[in-house]
Amino acid sequence: MTPPAIPLSAKARRTGDQPISYFMQQAIENPDLISLAAGLVDEESLPAAAVREALDGLLADPADARAALQYGTTPGLASLRRQVLDRYLAAEGVAAGEVNLSADDVVITTGSQQLLYLVGELLLDPGDVVLTEAPSYFVHHGLLTSHGARIVPVAMDDDGLDVDALEGRLQALERQGELGRVKLIYVCDYYQNPSGRTLGLERRRRLVEVTRRYGRQHRILVLEDAAYRELRFEGDDLPGVKRFDPTNDLVIYTSTFSKPCAPGLKTGFGILPRGLTAPLLRLKGNHDFGSNNLTQHVIDRLLASGAYDRHLTDLRAAYLRKRDAMLRALEREFGDVPGATWTRPTGGLYVWLSLPRHLDTGPNGRLLEEALREGVLYVPGEFCHAEGEGAPLPTWEARLCYGVATAEEIDEAIRRLRRAAGRVMVSRDAQRSAHAKPQAAAANR
Amino acid sequence: MTPPAIPLSAKARRTGDQPISYFMQQAIENPDLISLAAGLVDEESLPAAAVREALDGLLADPADARAALQYGTTPGLASLRRQVLDRYLAAEGVAAGEVNLSADDVVITTGSQQLLYLVGELLLDPGDVVLTEAPSYFVHHGLLTSHGARIVPVAMDDDGLDVDALEGRLQALERQGELGRVKLIYVCDYYQNPSGRTLGLERRRRLVEVTRRYGRQHRILVLEDAAYRELRFEGDDLPGVKRFDPTNDLVIYTSTFSKPCAPGLKTGFGILPRGLTAPLLRLKGNHDFGSNNLTQHVIDRLLASGAYDRHLTDLRAAYLRKRDAMLRALEREFGDVPGATWTRPTGGLYVWLSLPRHLDTGPNGRLLEEALREGVLYVPGEFCHAEGEGAPLPTWEARLCYGVATAEEIDEAIRRLRRAAGRVMVSRDAQRSAHAKPQAAAANR
Repeated sequence: MTPPAIPLSAKARRTGDQPISYFMQQAIENPDLISLAAGLVDEESLPAAAVREALDGLLADPADARAALQYGTTPGLASLRRQVLDRYLAAEGVAAGEVNLSADDVVITTGSQQLLYLVGELLLDPGDVVLTEAPSYFVHHGLLTSHGARIVPVAMDDDGLDVDALEGRLQALERQGELGRVKLIYVCDYYQNPSGRTLGLERRRRLVEVTRRYGRQHRILVLEDAAYRELRFEGDDLPGVKRFDPTNDLVIYTSTFSKPCAPGLKTGFGILPRGLTAPLLRLKGNHDFGSNNLTQHVIDRLLASGAYDRHLTDLRAAYLRKRDAMLRALEREFGDVPGATWTRPTGGLYVWLSLPRHLDTGPNGRLLEEALREGVLYVPGEFCHAEGEGAPLPTWEARLCYGVATAEEIDEAIRRLRRAAGRVMVSRDAQRSAHAKPQAAAANR
Repeated sequence: MTPPAIPLSAKARRTGDQPISYFMQQAIENPDLISLAAGLVDEESLPAAAVREALDGLLADPADARAALQYGTTPGLASLRRQVLDRYLAAEGVAAGEVNLSADDVVITTGSQQLLYLVGELLLDPGDVVLTEAPSYFVHHGLLTSHGARIVPVAMDDDGLDVDALEGRLQALERQGELGRVKLIYVCDYYQNPSGRTLGLERRRRLVEVTRRYGRQHRILVLEDAAYRELRFEGDDLPGVKRFDPTNDLVIYTSTFSKPCAPGLKTGFGILPRGLTAPLLRLKGNHDFGSNNLTQHVIDRLLASGAYDRHLTDLRAAYLRKRDAMLRALEREFGDVPGATWTRPTGGLYVWLSLPRHLDTGPNGRLLEEALREGVLYVPGEFCHAEGEGAPLPTWEARLCYGVATAEEIDEAIRRLRRAAGRVMVSRDAQRSAHAKPQAAAANR
C-alpha cells in the first residue's frame, strides 16, 4: 500500500534544486571533461602538511586535545574569534574601538554559507526584498528563494555594483510603497563570484551612505560577502564596505577559510552589527549549537603559527599563474570574436565571459551542448541572474573558474570552448546565408 | 544617532534563548562547582590517540588528503554513508533489501542536532503539531518552538513513551479536527535524554502501527532519535522503531558520533524514508552544501579500522562505572527521603531524579539556590517539559548527567545535592511546625 503524501512545509516547497547540480553530475560522470564550472580550489596547493602539523601539535597536548574533541560553544572558539577580529582590524588598519567591534561580534559558522543562511533566516519573511548585484552568487539566490524573499537585481559594471542604479531601485521601491519590505543589500565586493569584479572605493562609501539614508524608518542591512578578499594577487587591498560603518550598525561582514585555506575545514565567520549577534546565535543554537570544534582548533593554530599566511602567499602565486593562463588563452582564442569580452580579476577564482549576444550559453542552448561534446564545462551566466523587473535575462554570458583546473588544463579548456563556439557560429552563419539568398532575391524583385 | 530597529523575521522573533544557557554560564564562572547539568561526555576517554592516528594516515596519503581538504558533497562522504548503513543493518540484523534502504537514504549532518533542525524545517509550518515524550530533550523543544510548532506532550513511564496515551492524544486531536496539523512524533528511544528510559520492544511495534493508522490521510512521520543507542552498557540491544517500518516510509532514524566518539567531530546522520531525502538535501544545500568534510574522513577511517568500536568498548565500561557511582550515591543519600525515586539507565548519560513534590527543583526554587551554594548543578526537570494541555508542569524533577564528572565528583555532587535538599526540607519542616502549632491549637478548641 502506497502511503499518503508527505506534507512538506511552505519553506521546503519553496526550496528548489540548485541548477548547478546537473552540471556537477556531468563533471563527475565524464572524467575527460575539464570543468571550469565548479568553484573548487586548487588541489595541488591544499595545505595537507600544515594541517597535519597543526593537528599533531593539537592532539599531542592532552588538554588541547580534550578541548578540541569535546563540545565547543555556539559562537565558536574564543581564541579563534579573537584572531579573526585582529586580522580583520589589521586589514582595515584600525583599532577595535574605532569601529565599535569586539570578539563578541564574531561568530564562527559552518563555512560562510551558513552565515549567509542564518542572516536570511534572521531577517527575511516571505515577500521581503533583497537587493543583489546582477549577476550574483547563484547559491545565494537559491537560499533567498527558500526564505521566500523577492530578489531585486541591480546593475553592475567593471567597478562593481552601480550605486546609482541601487539608489534608483530604492527610490522606485519607495514610490511603490515597498521600501518597508527591503531588508538587505547583498554584495560580494572582492573579485566577485561570479564576475571577478571588485567594488570601487568611492562606491563602498556611497553604498553605506545610501543604505543609511533609505533605512531611516527601519534598519536596512548590508551583507558584505568578502569570501575572496584574501585571494588578492594584484593591486592594493581595499577597505571593506564595513569600514564605512564605524558605529557597527549596518554592515554584516562575512568571509571564510574555505577558499584561502581548505574547503574541507568548512569554517567561515561573520562579523556582526551590535544587536544582531544575540538573535543570530539563538538561531544557530537550534541549528547545531556550534560548528565543528576540531577544525576551529586547527585553524586557530594555523593562524597563530603563521602557517596560514605562508600558505596564502603560495596560493596567491598559484592563482595568479592560473588567471594568467586563462586570460592568455582567452586572448588567443576569443580575441578575434567580435563582441566577446571578459573581465580581468585581480584576485579570486573567476573570469566572466560575455559572448556575442546570439551565442546562447544557457542550459538548453547549442553552445553548452557543443562544449560538453568537446569536453569543457562552464556555468551558464543566466544561473547568476535573478528574474528582474520585467527585463529579459542575459543569455550570452558564462562564469569561468580557474580554481581547480591546472594551467595546462585551463589552456586546453579555452581551446575546446572556442571550438564549440566556432561550430555554433559557423552553423549560424550557414543558416544566415541560406536565409539571406531568398531574402536577397526578394529584395531584387 | 541611534539607528532604527532591526526588523527581525517572524522565525527569529519566535526563537528564544535556550533556558540552559544561564546554567552553563554558572558552571563556567564557578570552577569548584560540580556540574551534573551539562550533557558533555567523559573527558578522560576522548579518543585523542585514535583520532590522531586516523588523521596522520589520512593526511600522509596525498590523494586522501586532497579529498578530505577539498569540498565534499551535500549528502556527505559516500564511503561513510555506506558504513553508517552497514552498521545500522548489522545492529538490526537485516539486509538492506528487507528494510528498503540504500546508502542514498543516509545523510551526514553537523551533529544529529542539524538533522533534527532540518527535519523540523522540512515538515513544520507554524501551528503544526509535534507529539513528544514528557519529559523530552529540551533543545529539541527550543527548535520546535522556533519553527512555530505546537508541542503536545505524551506521558511516559519506565517503559518509555506510553503508546496508549499517544493514541489518546491523536484521538483527541482528531475529534478537535486537528489531526491534519499533526506532522511528527519525536521519540528518544534509547536511554532517553533526559530520563534515561528506553522504549520497550512491544511499544516500538505499536508506535509504528498507531502512526500509520492515524496517518492515513496525510503522512505522519516518526523521528527516532537514537543518539545514545551505542552507549549501551547493560542488557541487549533492542531493534529500532525504524525496524518496524520495513517499507521505509514513516520513520526517520537519527544518531550521532558525538556521544559515542567525540563531540568535537560534530558529525551525525539521518537515515530517511524515501521521498524525504531529496527535499531535505535541498534545504541542507542552502544551509552549508555539506557538513565538515575533514572530520567525515576521520570518522570513516575510525570506523573502518575498528578504532571506533574499540573506543566504544572502553567508553561503555567508563559510563557503567560512572552510572554505578551515581546510583550508589543516590541510594546512600536519598534512600531515606520519602517519595524520592530515580531511574536506572542501562546506557546513555542520564538519571532522572524525582523528589518529594514539595521540593521545587525549578530555576527560581530554593533547592537550586542551595545546590549552587553547595557547589552542584543539575538541569531543572521543568525545562524538559513543554506546556501541556492545561495540566501544570511537574516541578520536582531533575536531570542528572554522569557524563563529564568523574566517579569521585559524582559521589561528592550527590552528597552536596542531598545537603541542599536537606536544608530545604528542614526549613519547610520548621515552617510546618510553626504553622502546625496554631492549627493544632485551633483543632483543640
